[in-house]
Amino acid sequence: MNKILKAEKELEIPFHDIDAIKIVWHGHYYKYFEIARTTLFRAIDYDVDEMLASNYGWPVVETQCRYLQPLTYGMKIKVIATLLEYEHRVKIGYEILESNTEKKMCRGQTIQVAYDLLRQATDLLTPEVFLNKLKKFGII
Amino acid sequence: MNKILKAEKELEIPFHDIDAIKIVWHGHYYKYFEIARTTLFRAIDYDVDEMLASNYGWPVVETQCRYLQPLTYGMKIKVIATLLEYEHRVKIGYEILESNTEKKMCRGQTIQVAYDLLRQATDLLTPEVFLNKLKKFGII
Amino acid sequence: MNKILKAEKELEIPFHDIDAIKIVWHGHYYKYFEIARTTLFRAIDYDVDEMLASNYGWPVVETQCRYLQPLTYGMKIKVIATLLEYEHRVKIGYEILESNTEKKMCRGQTIQVAYDLLRQATDLLTPEVFLNKLKKFGII
Amino acid sequence: MNKILKAEKELEIPFHDIDAIKIVWHGHYYKYFEIARTTLFRAIDYDVDEMLASNYGWPVVETQCRYLQPLTYGMKIKVIATLLEYEHRVKIGYEILESNTEKKMCRGQTIQVAYDLLRQATDLLTPEVFLNKLKKFGII
Repeated sequence: MNKILKAEKELEIPFHDIDAIKIVWHGHYYKYFEIARTTLFRAIDYDVDEMLASNYGWPVVETQCRYLQPLTYGMKIKVIATLLEYEHRVKIGYEILESNTEKKMCRGQTIQVAYDLLRQATDLLTPEVFLNKLKKFGII
Repeated sequence: MNKILKAEKELEIPFHDIDAIKIVWHGHYYKYFEIARTTLFRAIDYDVDEMLASNYGWPVVETQCRYLQPLTYGMKIKVIATLLEYEHRVKIGYEILESNTEKKMCRGQTIQVAYDLLRQATDLLTPEVFLNKLKKFGII
Repeated sequence: MNKILKAEKELEIPFHDIDAIKIVWHGHYYKYFEIARTTLFRAIDYDVDEMLASNYGWPVVETQCRYLQPLTYGMKIKVIATLLEYEHRVKIGYEILESNTEKKMCRGQTIQVAYDLLRQATDLLTPEVFLNKLKKFGII
Repeated sequence: MNKILKAEKELEIPFHDIDAIKIVWHGHYYKYFEIARTTLFRAIDYDVDEMLASNYGWPVVETQCRYLQPLTYGMKIKVIATLLEYEHRVKIGYEILESNTEKKMCRGQTIQVAYDLLRQATDLLTPEVFLNKLKKFGII
C-alpha cells in the first residue's frame, strides 16, 4: 500500500451497553468497531449503498477482539480502524483508546469477503470496484 | 371476536440483557414482546414471509410498556401476547409473568398498521389477507 | 417550572440498528432516548454516579413511543429530551427530528420513580436531592 | 481432562437479531455463545452468583468467531460450548449447528481470566474454587 487507510471515530459509552459487572459487555465492542469501519469505507466512497450498487455484499466472515482494559459508563473513546489487507479479503484492524489518556483499551479485527450478488457466490479475489476505490484515493 | 387470539412463550433472562443496576434494561422488554408476537402471528399462519408474500409490511407505529417488577438474571418468564384490535390497526397486548409464581412483572402493547408494499402507502383498513387469516382460524 | 429543562443530542443511525425491513428496529429508539436523557440529567449535575451517591435509583416504570416516520441507515438525527413532570415521578418527553429537515420522526416518553436504596422502597414524592438540583439550575 | 465438559442449548433466531442483509448481525453471535456458556457453567454449579460468592469475577479477555454459513430469521440452532482450557485461563470453544441438518454454521471461542475481587487483581492461575468444581463433577 502507498498510504495507510485509517479512520477514527469518537464515541461515548452509553448506559445501555453496561452490564451487571459495570463494564461494557464484550459483544458490544463489535458495534463500536462497525461505526469506525463505516467511517473507513466512507473515506473511499464505498459505504453500504455503493456496495449494493456495485452488486457486492461484504459479509463479515471473522471477528476477533482482545480486551485489555474495561470500558465503563460515560467513558469517551476513540475507535481507530485500519485497512490491513485487501487482496483476497478485506481485513480491518481496530484499536480503542481512552480519549483523554490515549490508553489502549482493546484491539480487534474483522475479515470480510466479497460476495457477488449476481452470481450468488463468494469471490476469491477482491473485485475491481474495490481496487478502483483504493486506487482513486491513492491507497494502492 | 369469536375467540381470543393469544400466544405464550417461555423465556429465560440472559446475562447480556442485565444492566448496571442488575435488572433487565427497559428497552429489552420489546424483544421479549416480539418473540411472543411472532408466536401469535405464526398461530394464524402469518409470519414475516407470509406478510411479505401478501405484499404487506406491518410496521410498528406505537409501543408502550409499564414495568411493575424488575426482571433479573436467570429468571424464567412467560410472555403472553393477545390480539386486542384488528379492524383498523393491529393492537397486541402483552404481559410478562414470572413463570414459577405467575406474578405479573409488566404489561405493554404494540400497534402495527398495514403498509401496502405495492402502493407504498399505509392502509386505513386491515387488508383482506389478514381478515381471512383470522376467519380461517375462527377468531372472527 | 420557571424554565424548561431540555437537552438535545445529535446521533447518526448505525448499521447494526437496522432491521430486515431496512429501518431502525422499534426497540432501539429507547437507546436514543436514553442518550438524550443522560444529557438532560447531566445538565443538572445528576448523572448515574450522583444518583447512586444520593442513595436513589431511578428505575424506568413506563416507556412509550409513537413512530411517525422510519429512521434509516446513516440518517442524522436530533434527539430532544424535555422534563415534563417532577413532583411525584420524573416524566421526560422525547422527540426525534431528522437533522437536515427538522422533520419529526417520532415522539415518546419515559417515567421514572425515585427508589430509596437505603429503605429499599419507592418514594411517592420526588426526593429533596432532585428538587435541589432543579432549584440550583433555576428550573423550579 | 478425564471428561469433556460440554453444554448445548437450542435457540431460535428472533427477528430483532436480523440485519438489513437479512442475516444475523455478526455481533449477536456472542449472545448465543453466552447462553451456551451459562449452561456450561451451571453444569458445574458455577453460575454468576457462585462466581461472585467465591470472590471472583471472570471477565472475558478475548472473543473470536468464524462465520461459515449465515443464520437467518426463524432458524433453529444448537449452540454447543466446550471447555478447552482451564489451567491459566478458561478457554471455551463454540459451535453453532443448524438444528435440523446439523450443518455447522460457525465456530468461535472466548477466553476468560479469574479476577480476584478482594485483591482487585487478575490471577495467573485458575483459583482453587474453580478447580474444585471441575473435580467435583469429574472433569479433572
